[in-house]
Amino acid sequence: MSFIHIQEVIPRDGFQIERNFVPTDKKINLINELSDCGLSKIEVTSFVSPKAVPNLKDAEEVVTSIKRNPDVTNVALIANVRGAERAIAAHIDEINLVMSASATHNKKNVNRTHEESLAGFNEIMSRVHGTGIKVNGSVATSFGCPFEGEIAENAVQHFIDKYISMGMDSITLADTTGMANPVQVKRLVEKVIDQIGDVPLTLHFHNTRGMGLANVVAAIEAGATRFDSSLGGIGGCPFAPGATGNLCTEDLVHMLHEMGLETKVNLDKLIELSKGLPELLGRNDIPGQIVKAGKVTDLHKT
Amino acid sequence: MSFIHIQEVIPRDGFQIERNFVPTDKKINLINELSDCGLSKIEVTSFVSPKAVPNLKDAEEVVTSIKRNPDVTNVALIANVRGAERAIAAHIDEINLVMSASATHNKKNVNRTHEESLAGFNEIMSRVHGTGIKVNGSVATSFGCPFEGEIAENAVQHFIDKYISMGMDSITLADTTGMANPVQVKRLVEKVIDQIGDVPLTLHFHNTRGMGLANVVAAIEAGATRFDSSLGGIGGCPFAPGATGNLCTEDLVHMLHEMGLETKVNLDKLIELSKGLPELLGRNDIPGQIVKAGKVTDLHKT
Repeated sequence: MSFIHIQEVIPRDGFQIERNFVPTDKKINLINELSDCGLSKIEVTSFVSPKAVPNLKDAEEVVTSIKRNPDVTNVALIANVRGAERAIAAHIDEINLVMSASATHNKKNVNRTHEESLAGFNEIMSRVHGTGIKVNGSVATSFGCPFEGEIAENAVQHFIDKYISMGMDSITLADTTGMANPVQVKRLVEKVIDQIGDVPLTLHFHNTRGMGLANVVAAIEAGATRFDSSLGGIGGCPFAPGATGNLCTEDLVHMLHEMGLETKVNLDKLIELSKGLPELLGRNDIPGQIVKAGKVTDLHKT
Repeated sequence: MSFIHIQEVIPRDGFQIERNFVPTDKKINLINELSDCGLSKIEVTSFVSPKAVPNLKDAEEVVTSIKRNPDVTNVALIANVRGAERAIAAHIDEINLVMSASATHNKKNVNRTHEESLAGFNEIMSRVHGTGIKVNGSVATSFGCPFEGEIAENAVQHFIDKYISMGMDSITLADTTGMANPVQVKRLVEKVIDQIGDVPLTLHFHNTRGMGLANVVAAIEAGATRFDSSLGGIGGCPFAPGATGNLCTEDLVHMLHEMGLETKVNLDKLIELSKGLPELLGRNDIPGQIVKAGKVTDLHKT
């Protein structure tokens, strides 16, 4: 039995692009409930400018108000030194730094060149040093860029080397706009695990083109054991309106359990939380399938 | 480069449960367009009672009016001897016979015991003998039954033996309500390929719980090369309202091409046909993802 870590991202990756602001008390309540589900990490917010991401303007209140479960690592996405200072002040467990392997996507996403991003990360690393806060380095568009197309695997590996040499504690390969396929995933994950050894590696897949769960299986075959996903499949990218976004947490956990893999996640509780999303978000088109179809083990009466 | 056969089922498996009757001329037109897409088979209709499936009441007119592309095998689903006689009279290329591995599901679906289904198949085989029409035998609920739960693999293999001994030309394992997972698929497909050798094997997956494409990858790893799917992902089962139904053809072909596998299918033409489904069916909630997200190779301008 392999153990797979499930890392929830709905409070950040999901809520950031929702049409409606999710009230702070409801965010905190959902994160508290998620903290009791057996998840390894929760990306609870992002310390960014409230002008850039109004939906996450309550980052301080969220981080300082949520219950802290010692078994759950609470993560915040950080875009710059100011964000790192806010995250340190709020005593977050881990900060997540993101740069795109694609120069074009990085410029579009954070308005920086690769050199500017890496220089910023260096400064952030020196601020974080000694605080006990862990740092995860994410390589966005690792499997393809919506502007540039194919991304060279050695470019991804080059940036991972940079992250490791800065002292980052863990690495994420992100398929930011859902371009990865299972053959590519298996190949790149094998290479990266060879490269980073015991440094924890997370795969952050989107289901934009329906391949999300197939990519998870390919990554597990290549040795991956940590996955980001979002309750209900909430989140996504603005380039594909109507398309599915992040990998759906309950669909992911359901598949892994059916495959005989262990997660420690309470699937029934996740499903109940997901059923609350239409009311929480004010919309009914939640991408997750298990909430609609039921688990394989939910039998019908004749 | 492995070659994967894509077998389209929208005219039968898709249209049979649509709320609105698809006009016969539009069905014929869609089948004719699909015949030019490089698909290996098209399940064009079912010769069943118009009372049981009103949406397919035009089976004779469809089969006798469509253009016959010699590279495409036109298939009709058959429920009984009367249906076989109609299919023979209409000069179909292949008939598809279905029995569920689950006794409960078989009773619910066709109101027969296993013995009654097999006796009927024997009678149909004798009618078909000498006509040149091929016969495919499908084992529904091969990966699980919504009433009984787990289905023993040796039960599935037992029915396959019966089909082969009756002289059926090919076999389909159907995941009728989307219960299969990749570990199970790999194990059962390996066993069945060992069992039937060169007899063509089709996998008929549904995406009810999001695992459809992951199951395809697992089946290919086990040696499968033939898959049923439905344009737009139309079709499904009445037990999971709102859930995704059949595997979506264009999403399947897109993934296979991205994986470097060959299908001979014209993906762009399929996508165009799928874009016509909302108008054809009078609804906008088409499950397919590629129509919404675009292909991986459809790059955005900066």
